[in-house]
Amino acid sequence: MFDPAQLAALSAVLRAGSFERAAQMLHVTQSAISQRLRQLEEQVGTSLVIRSQPCRATEAGERLFRHAEEVRLLEQGVRRDLGLKTQTAGDADGWPTLRLAVNADSLATWFVAAMQDIEGVLFDLVIDDQDHSADWLKRGEVRAAISGSAKPVQGCDCRPLGTLRYLATASPRFMAQWFEADGVTAASLGRAPVITFNAKDRLQARWAEEALGITATGPSHWLPSSHAFVDAAIAGLGWGMNPEPLAGEALADGRLREVVPGKPLDVPLYWHVSRSVAGAMKPVTDAVIRASARVLRPIP
Amino acid sequence: MFDPAQLAALSAVLRAGSFERAAQMLHVTQSAISQRLRQLEEQVGTSLVIRSQPCRATEAGERLFRHAEEVRLLEQGVRRDLGLKTQTAGDADGWPTLRLAVNADSLATWFVAAMQDIEGVLFDLVIDDQDHSADWLKRGEVRAAISGSAKPVQGCDCRPLGTLRYLATASPRFMAQWFEADGVTAASLGRAPVITFNAKDRLQARWAEEALGITATGPSHWLPSSHAFVDAAIAGLGWGMNPEPLAGEALADGRLREVVPGKPLDVPLYWHVSRSVAGAMKPVTDAVIRASARVLRPIP
Repeated sequence: MFDPAQLAALSAVLRAGSFERAAQMLHVTQSAISQRLRQLEEQVGTSLVIRSQPCRATEAGERLFRHAEEVRLLEQGVRRDLGLKTQTAGDADGWPTLRLAVNADSLATWFVAAMQDIEGVLFDLVIDDQDHSADWLKRGEVRAAISGSAKPVQGCDCRPLGTLRYLATASPRFMAQWFEADGVTAASLGRAPVITFNAKDRLQARWAEEALGITATGPSHWLPSSHAFVDAAIAGLGWGMNPEPLAGEALADGRLREVVPGKPLDVPLYWHVSRSVAGAMKPVTDAVIRASARVLRPIP
Repeated sequence: MFDPAQLAALSAVLRAGSFERAAQMLHVTQSAISQRLRQLEEQVGTSLVIRSQPCRATEAGERLFRHAEEVRLLEQGVRRDLGLKTQTAGDADGWPTLRLAVNADSLATWFVAAMQDIEGVLFDLVIDDQDHSADWLKRGEVRAAISGSAKPVQGCDCRPLGTLRYLATASPRFMAQWFEADGVTAASLGRAPVITFNAKDRLQARWAEEALGITATGPSHWLPSSHAFVDAAIAGLGWGMNPEPLAGEALADGRLREVVPGKPLDVPLYWHVSRSVAGAMKPVTDAVIRASARVLRPIP
């Protein structure tokens, strides 16, 4: 088996991006880090880290990094099963780090509550669109993902979590300026500025098409932040699809209005988890299901 | 001069990521988009768009894309100077799109107010760490950036905006669990879980070093979202440097405490703007200065 201290050195360099910070993380000298990494590279027979600013993994380094994470996670499962005390001390090797892909709106609405519910794990979150988060799992870069797709990823289990309700929202002034004269028509919707999260975000276009049968939306702002997205809608910069739990307060106090009342867009979310660590991940899966159930609606 | 309709087709394809959606954005047929792009490519004598999923720019395409954006921005300046009505109609070519690099914490605290203050512009925001946002400007990928560095970027003007105050914060329960026994010492801080935005984020380490003279922080969660960062601190997952305007409410009602009271970290922020469009950008610069002054503290 690979030497745990050497694997820890590799993980720390790749997480921290430099030998100096890795040494600080592990409370050892920089030369101890260099030496452990060199020994690991000699054993594997190939370079593991590209010594750039910041340091990056080679393909082999990335594979070993994931391996180290999986072993720590499995070990925590063993400790739990054997009734051993899980490590609470703060040395970086004590708690496994769990790399997950989460869509931004889940993180902004319910995912922190799930994290709060899981003991003895460090989270390393990758944020991506719900239509693309499963790609991280396919590439083997994360252990689990929250995705809008029910399509199973090879080697992974998939279970439904619920739907996140989105509402097309805008400020009252924006509504008056762009939609008062003619209502929400293909023409007015083609003129009114829209807010889009990023090039992957199809929610605005989907809503226009599914709710109104309109295929073209207007010129777009690009704003890759869930909270800023709500703030920008309140500020009157454009209309956009906001998650109900985030927009609810502003809708209740009148800072936001629904562009067309009674036309929500429900986006189902699924939890995909790598089968190789599904056992060790059980407490995480349970926490995710509990926290999501408090905010998401049942999938019809 | 390049044909505006052809440049608009290029911009739309690169923004929307596909010919189909570009056609929807510009309210023309997909074959019109193809034709305009092909004509532009023939004129330039090289390929501008890589026909992938999503479509990406070649080096020449990226250069022309930036050119189109600059011309629209300059034209808006001319319209203002000549007292012409700036375009309000919603065709995608009517409003210039302004690509800016903004640090996440500015976007979460004051930048939306600046955006609200600027008329007739579409924003395309790139979010990056305040220590790296200026790199986007150096690479010519944005027209302006909010950066933590006062170092002028070649061809750009730089002006100070103020400092964003960060406080080392954690939940009362977290404080009791990790710091009650021994206080905040090198040993306890080396054990206590910390929250880090991403590998570029040095704020936690800087604070430990500058405020306490401690060079090593504990094992880290990685959480690249300003609001989730505050939420995770409130949830007791770790301690982290939160902007005072975001953490203020939770500090006031007791959900958060300062790890060491009276030890803030003030991070200066600067507005860097490309000189080639500085004139056209004047209203944007003015709005950024006004909005930042309401939240940031004066730079000492």
